[in-house]
Amino acid sequence: MTPIPDQIHPPQRLLMGPGPINADPRVLRALSAPLIGQYDPAMTHYMNETMQLYRGVFETRNAATLLIDGTSRAGIEAVLVSLIQPGERVLVPIFGRFGHLLREIAERCGAQVHTLECEWGEVFRPEQIEAAIREVQPTLLALVQGDTSTTMCQPLEEIGAICRREGVLFYSDATASLAGNPLKTDEWGLDAVTAGLQKCLAGPSGSSPLTLSPRAVEVVHARRHVEAGISSGDDRLAEPGARIRSNYFDLSMVLDYWGALRLNHHTEATSMLYGARECARLLVNEGMDNAIARHALHGQAMVEGLKGLGLALFGDQAHRMNNVSAVRIPDGLDGEGLRRSMLEDFGIEIGTSFGPLHGKVWRLGVMGYNARRDTVLTTLAALEQTLRRGGVQCVAGGGVGAALDFYQEHQDQPVGERP
Amino acid sequence: MTPIPDQIHPPQRLLMGPGPINADPRVLRALSAPLIGQYDPAMTHYMNETMQLYRGVFETRNAATLLIDGTSRAGIEAVLVSLIQPGERVLVPIFGRFGHLLREIAERCGAQVHTLECEWGEVFRPEQIEAAIREVQPTLLALVQGDTSTTMCQPLEEIGAICRREGVLFYSDATASLAGNPLKTDEWGLDAVTAGLQKCLAGPSGSSPLTLSPRAVEVVHARRHVEAGISSGDDRLAEPGARIRSNYFDLSMVLDYWGALRLNHHTEATSMLYGARECARLLVNEGMDNAIARHALHGQAMVEGLKGLGLALFGDQAHRMNNVSAVRIPDGLDGEGLRRSMLEDFGIEIGTSFGPLHGKVWRLGVMGYNARRDTVLTTLAALEQTLRRGGVQCVAGGGVGAALDFYQEHQDQPVGERP
Repeated sequence: MTPIPDQIHPPQRLLMGPGPINADPRVLRALSAPLIGQYDPAMTHYMNETMQLYRGVFETRNAATLLIDGTSRAGIEAVLVSLIQPGERVLVPIFGRFGHLLREIAERCGAQVHTLECEWGEVFRPEQIEAAIREVQPTLLALVQGDTSTTMCQPLEEIGAICRREGVLFYSDATASLAGNPLKTDEWGLDAVTAGLQKCLAGPSGSSPLTLSPRAVEVVHARRHVEAGISSGDDRLAEPGARIRSNYFDLSMVLDYWGALRLNHHTEATSMLYGARECARLLVNEGMDNAIARHALHGQAMVEGLKGLGLALFGDQAHRMNNVSAVRIPDGLDGEGLRRSMLEDFGIEIGTSFGPLHGKVWRLGVMGYNARRDTVLTTLAALEQTLRRGGVQCVAGGGVGAALDFYQEHQDQPVGERP
Repeated sequence: MTPIPDQIHPPQRLLMGPGPINADPRVLRALSAPLIGQYDPAMTHYMNETMQLYRGVFETRNAATLLIDGTSRAGIEAVLVSLIQPGERVLVPIFGRFGHLLREIAERCGAQVHTLECEWGEVFRPEQIEAAIREVQPTLLALVQGDTSTTMCQPLEEIGAICRREGVLFYSDATASLAGNPLKTDEWGLDAVTAGLQKCLAGPSGSSPLTLSPRAVEVVHARRHVEAGISSGDDRLAEPGARIRSNYFDLSMVLDYWGALRLNHHTEATSMLYGARECARLLVNEGMDNAIARHALHGQAMVEGLKGLGLALFGDQAHRMNNVSAVRIPDGLDGEGLRRSMLEDFGIEIGTSFGPLHGKVWRLGVMGYNARRDTVLTTLAALEQTLRRGGVQCVAGGGVGAALDFYQEHQDQPVGERP
């Protein structure tokens, strides 16, 4: 008989990889609030507040702004399976691992997927995407905003207008980028955006905020079906479109649950809703522009420090996300061994990458609650020690020094001070 | 500009409906433990412990015992979409709302679904299911164990042997019943069982424990595909079966993530995993038989009290779940108004039902952390007052008195004492 383990008691870690990162303590506290019933007026009120708060985070007026109960990839699948009818053409420009994921999910939804690829470490120019749209004539363009696998941030500003002109729905996966980089859902003409909590939103993985434009809602509603077990018989469309292939991810049903009808679907994940609400509340309170500026400041300080340690950055720096950077692992160094030392000796986690970059780069995240001066400087100090111990020549104090110089030159934020 | 709401501060509720119920405070505390990285040795250790603990809860030796990051319906969909190839026949005996749900999800997975229905308030005899299996010759039998919509508990003991004989996979949705009623995965020959935390497991909705027999794993593995973004090229099957229609719910990928390969899939919902682990830890520590006996004791005390108040029980009482009972709303009484009074005056939530039972019955849950003497007696006391105020004649003290008498006759458990 296996002995019964003790209560949870995780080691203290400073999570400076590409996510998940340490959640804001206020978010963790929100998770442990007492439960209430799913149709309690207090609960539906919290659901409405959560929708309104995420409108602030996504910078949108979309009524259809809500949470999917699952990780960020659940939000992606909900959008794709609800918007794509089998056989429809979908265009996926791929600049990293998560573009491959969008392709793969769209294929499973029955789409004819057309892709466009660029080197890992680069992004697409709007003309490239426009030309591909003209050629493929897709129903939907699915485009990652920030791909942590390469640290790149795809500019989206001009893509929405192209999609409108061509009559294409425009979806972006902003899991890694939202709240750390500008994303203006309405101004940029996005029809669907999904995210997760575990990056710049400073929460745990497990809830996926998403927003749908009225245009996208129309597509979803045309495929509405009510479950037999709760149908009143007169609530069905006369000629609904092809039934969405998933029940859990059927956004027409999820909208009926979050909307005025409050039709039973899943049982909303109350604790995660509390946490997701707190993530958005903290951001809206700080102001999205301030939150993005905070990520830019501390993300750049980390980059200056990495350069100060003599490390070479990976990828097109003009298009790097504010919140993640990648550096090449010095030749001959055991990159995984160094990551392990950082974790075991200092309790600091940094990341490696996937596919073509696996074992070639380390990725450092500066995001959410960890977008702070003390986390950046502590990480750089530990990294210098670990590199030296691994036989790499570094200028003593080169990393922390460069970061401190950068902070001095820019609007300095004292350790621990947060809005 | 909408004012920014304050931090979460839910009203105190005693949740005595069909779920969600109040989570065990120890589970809520586990939710707020600090996060760690998804490949941190501490995290993979917690994942392994969680698998082992749920083997105890499901009474199985199945290696493939893990969590789906979503509500209980996510677990259902993961099993159905992974086990059913489009076009295959599936048999769904329906005795309540959640049978309809299984049918609906199986249809969306592309199955040819055959159903068998009985009156709400009854269950099936094994011979009925056996005859239907012989007629339909399905690949899979999907059968709810406990359906909260009717409070019935379908006997499963003899079904597994029938399925083995007929070469049919046997799946049961035990969301509402697990840990409150016996469920012996291996002994009863179940190939797949799914659940949720928000009923007898005493946690919040949002994580779905499931277990798969080696036979079910074989079916899933035959459909294995590795994502292009993380594939090494030599990890693909030569001739895989039809690709599973969902990425998020692809159990072959989920198994690779929870298994020795640790192939990246979703980012495990760390906080919910902490909570799910604590739910199972408390149950295994108590002992499954003790937990079930606790639900039987307090569930029956509630039933005696309801009868003592002069209310008529709904459904075949020989097949009622231990943890939920339904009573007919007295003629002429405003059932929803009374539910509202219970909530507003006493902070106690009880449930109504769906479809043919909507507004006809109230449902009272006695489960998880709320399967206690004090919750039963408090609910009965408040219900008597509310019924009287609504003009219903009741014997003064009839409900609490009957429950107290029952407790005296049976092994009494003092208020608040839990293993």
